[in-house]
Amino acid sequence: MSHLPAPTQTAATVQRVDVALGERSYPILIGEDLLRAPGVLDGLVAARDVLLLTNTIVGPLYAERVNASLPGRRIVDVRLPDGEQHKTLENVARVLDALVANRFGRDSLAIALGGGVVGDLCGFTAACYQRGIAFAQLPTTLLAQVDSSVGGKTGVNHPGGKNLIGAFHQPGFVVADTSTLATLPPRELRAGLAEVIKYGLVFDADFLTWLESNMPRLLKLDAECLAYAIRRSCELKADVVRRDEREQGDRALLNLGHTFGHAIESATGYTEWLHGEAVATGMLIAADMSEKIGLLRRDDVERVRELLARAGLDLRPPRIGADRALDYMRVDKKVKGGRIRLILLRQLGQGIFTADYPDEALMKTLAAHFG
Amino acid sequence: MSHLPAPTQTAATVQRVDVALGERSYPILIGEDLLRAPGVLDGLVAARDVLLLTNTIVGPLYAERVNASLPGRRIVDVRLPDGEQHKTLENVARVLDALVANRFGRDSLAIALGGGVVGDLCGFTAACYQRGIAFAQLPTTLLAQVDSSVGGKTGVNHPGGKNLIGAFHQPGFVVADTSTLATLPPRELRAGLAEVIKYGLVFDADFLTWLESNMPRLLKLDAECLAYAIRRSCELKADVVRRDEREQGDRALLNLGHTFGHAIESATGYTEWLHGEAVATGMLIAADMSEKIGLLRRDDVERVRELLARAGLDLRPPRIGADRALDYMRVDKKVKGGRIRLILLRQLGQGIFTADYPDEALMKTLAAHFG
Repeated sequence: MSHLPAPTQTAATVQRVDVALGERSYPILIGEDLLRAPGVLDGLVAARDVLLLTNTIVGPLYAERVNASLPGRRIVDVRLPDGEQHKTLENVARVLDALVANRFGRDSLAIALGGGVVGDLCGFTAACYQRGIAFAQLPTTLLAQVDSSVGGKTGVNHPGGKNLIGAFHQPGFVVADTSTLATLPPRELRAGLAEVIKYGLVFDADFLTWLESNMPRLLKLDAECLAYAIRRSCELKADVVRRDEREQGDRALLNLGHTFGHAIESATGYTEWLHGEAVATGMLIAADMSEKIGLLRRDDVERVRELLARAGLDLRPPRIGADRALDYMRVDKKVKGGRIRLILLRQLGQGIFTADYPDEALMKTLAAHFG
Repeated sequence: MSHLPAPTQTAATVQRVDVALGERSYPILIGEDLLRAPGVLDGLVAARDVLLLTNTIVGPLYAERVNASLPGRRIVDVRLPDGEQHKTLENVARVLDALVANRFGRDSLAIALGGGVVGDLCGFTAACYQRGIAFAQLPTTLLAQVDSSVGGKTGVNHPGGKNLIGAFHQPGFVVADTSTLATLPPRELRAGLAEVIKYGLVFDADFLTWLESNMPRLLKLDAECLAYAIRRSCELKADVVRRDEREQGDRALLNLGHTFGHAIESATGYTEWLHGEAVATGMLIAADMSEKIGLLRRDDVERVRELLARAGLDLRPPRIGADRALDYMRVDKKVKGGRIRLILLRQLGQGIFTADYPDEALMKTLAAHFG
């Protein structure tokens, strides 16, 4: 540890977003070098027994910082292999085994250090262990910092579909250390930017315009730009989660591109495409479908394609054909009474959740992209 | 079906207890032949897709009645082997596979038809599938009718301890058909009576006195007595669940005898002892411990022993020794900060939850029973 540079953290650079959920409210802290900023983690963690769940890529980079920031705790470090294909019920069972073997009580804390896979699996494990222990998120990918670590959706994949097994279980806090993005592979940064763009498309046309202007700086990891993009994304997410924690309404809009994206991920066995990449392509398909049923103009769709392309995202789904794509979409959680409900765009900056579309428009859209 | 006797159900014989939990409130209906009473199940089930989870003993006896009472639904019937040893995460995975394979959506319903194993596993599966689908309980054992089907505790066992994996997930309704107790093995009836006695010990001295007077009639399945015992048990449980759904306080009192009982069940691999039998012995141990620390009088303990014995319950735990018993108890969910909290009796009809006892008293008690 002595060879690492000294912390550059000062209180002024910490941004805070609160997720207001009554007794289950929690803070999201965003800033540089927060994992080793004196007092930050230590002040947030009341538990004595801590599970630190990470993966074999992130663990060697950052676990030691977390350990050093939590003096006096008994920390059990569990590391999963990296990748979406490891977000399984079998790995939940492995982590549960570790909790039982170490005799963790109801008052212990599970901390996820990593991206969405680690966070989702850790949260679900915490939700199930002894009918629910506390957990916290230390997201180290852009996608996790702006999306998956916030809002309490936890879960794992099933061979039949993504996130089919899970729970709503809110974290006690989220600490997004933006310094960790320096070690993030560029491909994962781009995948995270897809989710950032999503917030603009669904909720905030001004933010979308800001992203159009600042995409080059974001890709260069400009600290100020990143912090703003993360904070604005978290604010928009916190707001919709507060209004609709259990996704009975507006929260579903956050799934823009996800139903189409699930088809891509399922067809490719969760291994070839990153989640954010599939979502990016799914958002373009959703925009295209929105145009087909008369909501968006063609130049709106081109703006979407252009922004996603400028974020470096590849927008060509696998050529599995419309029928197979539809088949995968049907297993998605948004199916109701057999009908697939879609998130579409009424205009840029305003998503809608609807089952009211002609089947033909869907099949034509799928054929255009998957055919 | 034509050889079965005609339903004897009339509206007047249905008893109803409500579990008041705001939006998640639900009714418990208690009465003879409710599974085939015209309109009862049909009126409660709004879903089109229904999972009917049962076991290979109960299924052949009652599944057809449930099917017949739910016309027009798509019913997927899954049967587990009978027994506590099958209450595992592996079987949850099997049931999840069936839900995915049949493309059940979020608006589907999981129904548990059987005892506590089926109910706990079904509820947990429903809690996890797509982050929570509706479920309902059709308990066919006395234990499930008075206890496990009510209150939303769901879960499965881990080799390291009972119910270590689970969730709080309230059913949408509970229908306790008392006619199903006619096919219940006498040993299971007695195990269920242990939980009935528990309510008297923890909450209601008058009910305890009533049980002392009516035990012979209960053992003979006297319909009126059974209905009263079930209703009173459900009322007491509904009341404590309403006050303390998540077991932050009083609800823990329902675990009288369970921590000691867990040690018995863990030591015998969940196969030799029925849950209610282990709880009965655990309650006697708790009463004994209560006397050792000056709460109960010796003749109170003898009243407990006498009532449990009159219910036909064997009260001799395995001779595993105090240390090993303590070891198993430590994995129990009620451990906090490393200290085992116990439910004891301040007097008959009044339970207390406490970590305030001399360790020596616990070790002496364990030695007296497990030594």
